Amino acid sequence: MRIALAQVNPKVGDFDRNLSLVREYSEKAHLEEADLVIFPELVLSGYLPEDWLLREEFLKGVDETLKRLVEFSKEIDPVLVVGYPKLTEGGIVYNTLGVIHKGKLLGEYYKHYLPNYGVFDEYRYFGRGEHLLTLEVGRGENRTKVGFLICEDIWHPTLARDYALLEVHLLVSINASPYEVGKFEKKLKFVSARSTDGLYYTAYVNLVGGQDSLVFDGRSFVVSPQGQLVKVAKAFEEDLLIVDIEPQNTVRSRLRDQRVKEATICEGVSEEVINLSVEKELNTSSERNGIFTYTPMEFEEEIFKALVLGIRDYFSKQGFKRAILGLSGGIDSALTAVLASEALGAENVLALYMPTVFNSTESYEDAKRLAENLGINFRVVEVEPFFERFEETFKNLFPDWRFDVADENIQARIRANILFYFSNKGGYIVLSTSNKSESAVGYTTIYGDMAGGFAPIKDVYKTWVYRLARWYNRYRGREVIPQRIIEKPPSAELRPNQTDQDTLPPYEVLDQILQLYIEENLPPSEIVKRGFEPQLVERVIKLLHRAEYKRKQAPIGVKITKVSFDRDWRIPIVKRIVF
Amino acid sequence: MRIALAQVNPKVGDFDRNLSLVREYSEKAHLEEADLVIFPELVLSGYLPEDWLLREEFLKGVDETLKRLVEFSKEIDPVLVVGYPKLTEGGIVYNTLGVIHKGKLLGEYYKHYLPNYGVFDEYRYFGRGEHLLTLEVGRGENRTKVGFLICEDIWHPTLARDYALLEVHLLVSINASPYEVGKFEKKLKFVSARSTDGLYYTAYVNLVGGQDSLVFDGRSFVVSPQGQLVKVAKAFEEDLLIVDIEPQNTVRSRLRDQRVKEATICEGVSEEVINLSVEKELNTSSERNGIFTYTPMEFEEEIFKALVLGIRDYFSKQGFKRAILGLSGGIDSALTAVLASEALGAENVLALYMPTVFNSTESYEDAKRLAENLGINFRVVEVEPFFERFEETFKNLFPDWRFDVADENIQARIRANILFYFSNKGGYIVLSTSNKSESAVGYTTIYGDMAGGFAPIKDVYKTWVYRLARWYNRYRGREVIPQRIIEKPPSAELRPNQTDQDTLPPYEVLDQILQLYIEENLPPSEIVKRGFEPQLVERVIKLLHRAEYKRKQAPIGVKITKVSFDRDWRIPIVKRIVF
Repeated sequence: MRIALAQVNPKVGDFDRNLSLVREYSEKAHLEEADLVIFPELVLSGYLPEDWLLREEFLKGVDETLKRLVEFSKEIDPVLVVGYPKLTEGGIVYNTLGVIHKGKLLGEYYKHYLPNYGVFDEYRYFGRGEHLLTLEVGRGENRTKVGFLICEDIWHPTLARDYALLEVHLLVSINASPYEVGKFEKKLKFVSARSTDGLYYTAYVNLVGGQDSLVFDGRSFVVSPQGQLVKVAKAFEEDLLIVDIEPQNTVRSRLRDQRVKEATICEGVSEEVINLSVEKELNTSSERNGIFTYTPMEFEEEIFKALVLGIRDYFSKQGFKRAILGLSGGIDSALTAVLASEALGAENVLALYMPTVFNSTESYEDAKRLAENLGINFRVVEVEPFFERFEETFKNLFPDWRFDVADENIQARIRANILFYFSNKGGYIVLSTSNKSESAVGYTTIYGDMAGGFAPIKDVYKTWVYRLARWYNRYRGREVIPQRIIEKPPSAELRPNQTDQDTLPPYEVLDQILQLYIEENLPPSEIVKRGFEPQLVERVIKLLHRAEYKRKQAPIGVKITKVSFDRDWRIPIVKRIVF
Repeated sequence: MRIALAQVNPKVGDFDRNLSLVREYSEKAHLEEADLVIFPELVLSGYLPEDWLLREEFLKGVDETLKRLVEFSKEIDPVLVVGYPKLTEGGIVYNTLGVIHKGKLLGEYYKHYLPNYGVFDEYRYFGRGEHLLTLEVGRGENRTKVGFLICEDIWHPTLARDYALLEVHLLVSINASPYEVGKFEKKLKFVSARSTDGLYYTAYVNLVGGQDSLVFDGRSFVVSPQGQLVKVAKAFEEDLLIVDIEPQNTVRSRLRDQRVKEATICEGVSEEVINLSVEKELNTSSERNGIFTYTPMEFEEEIFKALVLGIRDYFSKQGFKRAILGLSGGIDSALTAVLASEALGAENVLALYMPTVFNSTESYEDAKRLAENLGINFRVVEVEPFFERFEETFKNLFPDWRFDVADENIQARIRANILFYFSNKGGYIVLSTSNKSESAVGYTTIYGDMAGGFAPIKDVYKTWVYRLARWYNRYRGREVIPQRIIEKPPSAELRPNQTDQDTLPPYEVLDQILQLYIEENLPPSEIVKRGFEPQLVERVIKLLHRAEYKRKQAPIGVKITKVSFDRDWRIPIVKRIVF
């Protein structure tokens, strides 16, 4: 039996696009003589439509798309498996998997386990399924029983076990599993163990592409009943993965042979005990020989590709081509420019260098050098004349005037004014250059450097910004990002001789505290036990929570961590901060 | 039996404040010789803590507060009923009601029905309860069986019916029910019907106060077993409502007398049939005599008070006193100034009039007059010199320069710069003056008039802004808001002779379309059937959805409608717009 995993990139509400994708990949699968072609979760609607799922016209649109697809299925041989939201007559919407063949909707499976944590709110939209679905494909020796799951379902042991009891030979899992750094390896390991337990192949089909702050990394894969990774699709790209599934009898008899071979070791024990001990052996051997043959992608490369895809799809799915950003000569805007030029093409990126008296000559040189290296457009717009005008006025308005944070912020805000002026005039999307560390502690100017339509590195910790910059130069084999940008002490250059470390602890320390608190959800007392100063931990957590009102107004960006500040961090503004 | 409904205003995470409130109101109830004092849902933690509920240190803090409260209960006579989140040993958190008396936690009830729609995400945080809880209070004739529910529970018939089967005489419902215009009357009607069905008193205790974008309106109440409104607490203020509950026997025998009296009408029918017909009579009579004696608050007054409380608590719970806003001479900033001065005191409000060449003399006069009428601080900061400087520079930067939306927006953004400069220098919170209609269709400048720490009228439709302005002058019995502000055609005054209706349909039409789409969730085809031009409906819905990226960056404001743009409107930015 031959299966095709169609890892495609749909768009929310774009039924024509999504249907075209399904047709295109089905036709490819047909040419490859696949028996089954499998698409991701909610492929017809796009993932996640959020409150569009509460709207009648949206659900009707999906239903019409499904009907067109059923009609199309007459033209091809493979059985189609697709995901979509379905409004039932009882008025409940289910996250549904449909099996379609030759003009007929053969059966439907409703998702059982609805994730309602992190970025997920599926209880808001869907009812819970209660029935399993199996399908027999092929004839004679090749007859294969297939079972179906949707995303979260596979993480709950009961359903996978039920399919094992039904003796399915292939478990199909359709997914829209958002990218997080390090998550893929965990997923692979878990699904592998599940396949071993259930003695079936698992075909795990994932979405690919960017949707608002989420990026789907693709990497659909098939594991064997022994837990071995058979094949994996491309990361961060559309792909069609063709895999041949060995017949159930062949697999089972080989496993039986193996069992008998191993059973000879245990002399003088009953059949029952042998079986038990051998099953244990098989599990262990699958863990040894299975997924560990997979070589994980490098930390920096994986994040970089996720960010590039997130930016590209944010633009292309909205019909935008051009980005503008302020290039300061610092590391954050440098990395943002690199990402934008990789995602959109250098010719579509405009960088403005906008100095005041506090910006060093080195900053100008570094910004210019980087722009040249990338081949992006570069212009200088002097901010100093505006800044002077504001300061003159303000000195008259405030009798006790002295230079303080207000005067720092105004510089960042004038820059935002200029960027948005260009945006209005030239159809650019403004990219904010804020990173996760500064967004966490509020070390960023609201309506200033925070401003933008999209914030590519908003979920990237400052220490990771450095790692990505260094990695990029290695990856390109040349000093695209001038070494001086990477090495100089970070500074907002909003007052004389300013550095970030005048105000903040070193980023190595700050990022560790933030990660333990935000990603690991550790209580402060536990963080202190890991060797950080209690006063420092308290200060960081207070800064973090006091900046909530700023984060609520931040542009969205690409989620790459377990807990990003977009959909998965929900903290009130008004509160007393608890330790 | 005497009960006390303690309608208090807690703050998220402020355990000391919340405990003090509970102690203070318990002591008052003690002095009033109440048998039972009832506090709202999650009173010890504040409502809603959101993701603080996932943090160990927070749940520990709640637990310690509960222990302190149990200790305190030794000092008073009434039985205490309080709400709090409870982490159980299984690692599940329940939305809990605790019954405390004389140093003992007598019993706990876990919320059964978890709302997960609109602004609610309770499945994210809580497990579902499975047991009922009853308590017998008093002795002899006054012995009263009490049942308990939490908020959403009362909307599901099964639990209320179960308590009826258990023959409780008082159903206690503790709530954190956010304000929406018109919701209170629906609630009253529903709870009244439930009491009639179950033949018990219902004591409905609601939270009061503002928390981020939510306002709780209080108006706790008690209805009798005949569905009559016995007493209702203050709206939008803390209150202690004391109600005497008639003994069960007295109530039941009176109902029986009434039944017998009415039964005499039905001659020659069996006892069983009489009972049936009489029960029907009682239901009907309760609907006639019950809640309809309540006079609803005026539409404008209710909204106005909700907005004032929302602003006041946003400031006071964060320790802020002073607000700043741009006063343009238009209706939106006028109403915002009125609300701010009512909420914070006129002396704490600073209004800046910031003209460019496009602002009329009338606008200045109107702004100044309003400021004088309110007694708020008023300053003029000329924007024209900044605007000129920007325009000169931009004319040089863009060879084909002509005045367009970029040049309109820059004026609004300079104003935001100035407001935020004052905010940084003087500790003011900037109030955004955007209303719901313009926020819906994107007729607002991001980082311009949209900018602010808080947006008091963001959930108020433009036609409602006018209604509130007119009502306020009536309410104060004088022309506080100059009539000219109310009567002149609305204009952003960002180009010569501009009015909103150059770009938008009349607000009377726009608001109706928006309300049908947003609040009523009607599909566009249905809106057209109500008599609106199909092209106009399409245009409005497209404008609405294209402005999503702006709304994602808007400051929060007070929710007053069924679907506000804060927590209860979740629409992707990247999408194809569906009709």
